[in-house]
Amino acid sequence: MTIAPTPCPPYYAVIFTSTSSGDDSGYEAMADAMVSLAGQQRGFLGIESARDTLGITVSYWDSLEAIAAWKQNSAHLVAQQRGRDLWYKAFKTRICRVERDYVYNKEEQADVAPVRISR
Amino acid sequence: MTIAPTPCPPYYAVIFTSTSSGDDSGYEAMADAMVSLAGQQRGFLGIESARDTLGITVSYWDSLEAIAAWKQNSAHLVAQQRGRDLWYKAFKTRICRVERDYVYNKEEQADVAPVRISR
Repeated sequence: MTIAPTPCPPYYAVIFTSTSSGDDSGYEAMADAMVSLAGQQRGFLGIESARDTLGITVSYWDSLEAIAAWKQNSAHLVAQQRGRDLWYKAFKTRICRVERDYVYNKEEQADVAPVRISR
Repeated sequence: MTIAPTPCPPYYAVIFTSTSSGDDSGYEAMADAMVSLAGQQRGFLGIESARDTLGITVSYWDSLEAIAAWKQNSAHLVAQQRGRDLWYKAFKTRICRVERDYVYNKEEQADVAPVRISR
């Protein structure tokens, strides 16, 4: 997984933060399937995920309508229910509008490429 | 680390996504110090962090002014420079306005407490 190559703002982010129930059975396969399925949705811009004590997955979208459609996707609804039943002790989902971003890339810096700062 | 107990939206989030250079010397101590220092800043609401292939840290703030002040904090400026010099291969920082959130807690569900949905 890499840093999502999102376009210039504004766009939208869904921050999904979770704690695990301790039961991970079937989790990895479902997580992989959902990343793949999200990538096929209209308006999808990218996804980033990391997991240790907390799990944090951030998906990026071009509109609130795209986020709403993904939330209601039938296969995703099954995954959400399984998450509540099995994998998660607790979670919080935050819907955000990305206003600005800054990027840094050491390799590009070496070529004296400027840091892109959106406004 | 737990899911940040942020207030009802709107509020602001800074999503910091990074890839490591492979040199972690001094990283943990600095990360712990910055979490502690951020917690003392005016307008700080909480922080969440996870790290495996990617590192994702999301800090929450009550205003864009609080985010700007934290970015310019002198000890934080030192940490940011060390991050560019040593720890990070690349990173992206996204400044977001949190519009809505949803929470789920299995233990509260067992007590038939409602899921809070902000609008």
